[in-house]
Amino acid sequence: MCELLGMSANTPTDICFSFTGLMERGGRTGPHSDGWGIVFYEGRGARAFHDPKSSAQSPLAKWVKAYPIKSEIVLSHIRQANVGAISLENTHPFQRELWGRSWSFVHNGQIPRVKEISLNFYLPIGETDSEHAFCWILDQLRENYASIPDTNQKWLALVADICAELAKLGVFNMLLSDGEVLLSFCSSKLYWITRQAPFDQVTLKDTELTVNFAKETTDQDKVTIIATEPLTEDECWQHYESGEFRAFLRGDSIFESVVAV
Amino acid sequence: MCELLGMSANTPTDICFSFTGLMERGGRTGPHSDGWGIVFYEGRGARAFHDPKSSAQSPLAKWVKAYPIKSEIVLSHIRQANVGAISLENTHPFQRELWGRSWSFVHNGQIPRVKEISLNFYLPIGETDSEHAFCWILDQLRENYASIPDTNQKWLALVADICAELAKLGVFNMLLSDGEVLLSFCSSKLYWITRQAPFDQVTLKDTELTVNFAKETTDQDKVTIIATEPLTEDECWQHYESGEFRAFLRGDSIFESVVAV
Repeated sequence: MCELLGMSANTPTDICFSFTGLMERGGRTGPHSDGWGIVFYEGRGARAFHDPKSSAQSPLAKWVKAYPIKSEIVLSHIRQANVGAISLENTHPFQRELWGRSWSFVHNGQIPRVKEISLNFYLPIGETDSEHAFCWILDQLRENYASIPDTNQKWLALVADICAELAKLGVFNMLLSDGEVLLSFCSSKLYWITRQAPFDQVTLKDTELTVNFAKETTDQDKVTIIATEPLTEDECWQHYESGEFRAFLRGDSIFESVVAV
Repeated sequence: MCELLGMSANTPTDICFSFTGLMERGGRTGPHSDGWGIVFYEGRGARAFHDPKSSAQSPLAKWVKAYPIKSEIVLSHIRQANVGAISLENTHPFQRELWGRSWSFVHNGQIPRVKEISLNFYLPIGETDSEHAFCWILDQLRENYASIPDTNQKWLALVADICAELAKLGVFNMLLSDGEVLLSFCSSKLYWITRQAPFDQVTLKDTELTVNFAKETTDQDKVTIIATEPLTEDECWQHYESGEFRAFLRGDSIFESVVAV
């Protein structure tokens, strides 16, 4: 199993605190030592960092933890390799362009039979089942909508249906973003929490670190964090149901559906 | 004008030395203070760093200079903005997937009329003429070859023809790679040099730094560097002719052509 981390915020926010907790699980408090990656969206642009090294040991992870990159959407992943060797091309997040937007994807679970599905427009660069699934999602979005649909609801419903199909092939927990919306699907394990005023002091579970968000934020801020396991010990994280799909825009949950998996 | 830097090597090589020289030109010895980026290929994977900040001031550039990432192909760019705002999405290198390979592109010059060309498959995420040109190159490769051609010569000749077309629209110096081959085209200014045994001591022009490559290399190593301006003061760099297209594989020049521009 790998671990996922996502953020959707209504104001540029740094994710150093949550990322610090996640990185501890990459070889220190968790077994996910086969690489890590993170994408920060800033406007229409996306800035990615990938490292096939264990995140607890990685000098690049140390740099990213220390340097506050303010972003409205973040996706991150630490890997425990199952399908595909430990290499840069197999390190999440995967990225492609569709509709003139930069898309990113992270997956936890195993769906090896997804590789039997033939692909049309997008091809994997590495060997993971995860990247194959990402290419298939974008293939179907492109086939159904040559350009971006006039409402988000249309294509969000399509992605929810595709996730339900993928979950039939095994374990499929994922985060996906086009830089505007953060989409999430849970087949086995995923949690989320929305932080907003009044902000409070919170403490990481995986390392000795406490932050008082009241000092770091304004009353208007709204920040949603999604993670495979709750990252803090003094907050109430919401558990996704199995088969739950949820999309966030600027910290707000704007679409949800639950399918039988 | 922006500045370009490329490397093609027959063994994983770090580019810290050349990158250090280039970064000085981003706001200190040169005026290119509107962002910088670099892509390192490692196997089939590509690791990119982008920063809209001046490279001479950027904490991320400092990290990349200090941390030796060994790679067989590198593309880098420092920007002086002409077309498109200073933003992450307008920061080179641009990246896309074609034929299951990760492609990267950097451009120096101005070809604003390229935006009149309609695109089919690949769309720009930012507003630069450069990214539009990159999308057009990949569109034509995809239209001509649904999968990778059996010899490199075929698609290299096609890219050389496309570069000649683009050079009719203005100044078009570029580097392009699919992770195997490093392609280069010069419409106004570009230099290259191949370093191989016997290696010698060389000194950067832009900052006080000397490296003795004899200590860092083996007799089998072959490393070609391409740059807008020679980066060292004690080596003989070869000047590209206007209209010269050249492709490198593992440090060797494997294809060249010159068109009238």
